Amino acid sequence: MRNLSSRDNPRIKLVHALANQARERRKLGQTLLDGTHLITAAIEAGVTVLEVFVSESGLNNGEILDLLERLPADVQRNLVSDALFAHFSPVETPSGILALIAIPSVSTEVARGGSIVILDAVQDPGNLGTILRTAAAAGIAAAWLTPGCAQAWSPKALRAGMGAHFHLPIAEQVDAFAALADFSGRALATGLGANARSVYETDLSGPIAWLFGAEGQGLSASLFARADGVVTIPMAAGIESLNVGAAAAICLFEQRRQSAIESPAG
Amino acid sequence: MRNLSSRDNPRIKLVHALANQARERRKLGQTLLDGTHLITAAIEAGVTVLEVFVSESGLNNGEILDLLERLPADVQRNLVSDALFAHFSPVETPSGILALIAIPSVSTEVARGGSIVILDAVQDPGNLGTILRTAAAAGIAAAWLTPGCAQAWSPKALRAGMGAHFHLPIAEQVDAFAALADFSGRALATGLGANARSVYETDLSGPIAWLFGAEGQGLSASLFARADGVVTIPMAAGIESLNVGAAAAICLFEQRRQSAIESPAG
Repeated sequence: MRNLSSRDNPRIKLVHALANQARERRKLGQTLLDGTHLITAAIEAGVTVLEVFVSESGLNNGEILDLLERLPADVQRNLVSDALFAHFSPVETPSGILALIAIPSVSTEVARGGSIVILDAVQDPGNLGTILRTAAAAGIAAAWLTPGCAQAWSPKALRAGMGAHFHLPIAEQVDAFAALADFSGRALATGLGANARSVYETDLSGPIAWLFGAEGQGLSASLFARADGVVTIPMAAGIESLNVGAAAAICLFEQRRQSAIESPAG
Repeated sequence: MRNLSSRDNPRIKLVHALANQARERRKLGQTLLDGTHLITAAIEAGVTVLEVFVSESGLNNGEILDLLERLPADVQRNLVSDALFAHFSPVETPSGILALIAIPSVSTEVARGGSIVILDAVQDPGNLGTILRTAAAAGIAAAWLTPGCAQAWSPKALRAGMGAHFHLPIAEQVDAFAALADFSGRALATGLGANARSVYETDLSGPIAWLFGAEGQGLSASLFARADGVVTIPMAAGIESLNVGAAAAICLFEQRRQSAIESPAG
């Protein structure tokens, strides 16, 4: 295990930049996974860990020690002081271990055949990660994120995703209109309008591109107009809308419920 | 309109304390509503506004002026400088108007007959507010919060609730076991276990007390053991769990879907 003790060490500077700057993550195509849960999920999904950084007190944690034993021998282990770890840790309560990985490069072509979610300008990283987690749990084939979205591979979105990032191909900076031109299914938005139908009365079979917009603004008008259909979630009187994560959970799992009735074996 | 210009003014001190201290809100039984959307929702629900605080630049905002005209004449209007408003505003981008209200005092008896949600130690105020919003939209009759929950009437939970607080009776500091003893319906938890059944294959008619626990830990073991039944949300392979807000949205709206089929007129 290599000992890193100075803030001026180039590896420490790299980790600090990746933990705190979206631009650096995008430029280098790398990110950090914080804690044993996320790192284990990545390894189980076949993601290559490039390097790990462990705090001194992390060496007293059984789960971290187990994980270190499980990592391939050629993965560089770095030991840093607790103070240095806290300096670059992206969370308030440092977990004691960070792993450096390459951000998977995903094109919108991987989704051919399945249903997808398109997230339009969802800026809150916690909301974004939660929707990715819901989509993975619902068996969605891929997520496409427009340029206005928070970064999917930021520490906060990764934490909220709880490992979903390793089950769901995520394409970022997607031109939704161009990508939808190659999508064979229907694009459905949630909302109101003359043509809107209850999601429970809509046949959700076949591939669907679900369009979800930002909190507050909702979908961009142009993307809303591009939808092949609009579904509503019937709500109690006096309530106007749901949080986008709640709306996504209801729609994606209603699709899953309907498809389980169609083909109970799946 | 009264002009308040000093941080030492007792009204300013009160507002600062209510904006920033859960203990003060609980002690005084009062809270602040930030922005025209929340204040309008409160007025429409019949909540009495005790006093309002408007920033100087808030007087240039058409929505705030409309709201001031709409308020009863006897509601004290206070004008404060932008700097002073920013000093006590609970949000990063001050809206320009805050309203002081009494926190409604709600007992667990109001829920007789309907379905309820019991939130156990949901500590994140954003998550808590989102679940309250979802519950209100699903037509749930009341929310009971155990002592480990975040404060429902904190600025963050109010913001995430988007007005749900005025549609849904919220009882805080509830002893869930004692309150459930007087509840006539079934208590259902989400989770795994030998007796767990898919939520889609469970008859959700009649009053249900839905038990939702904290992110991470889940329900306390004793409350889980108190449940009359456990429902699971069928997920894609490899995914263990959902965010508590997503799980609540799926369960509460599945109940709503089933009840709409039973009685289409409702």
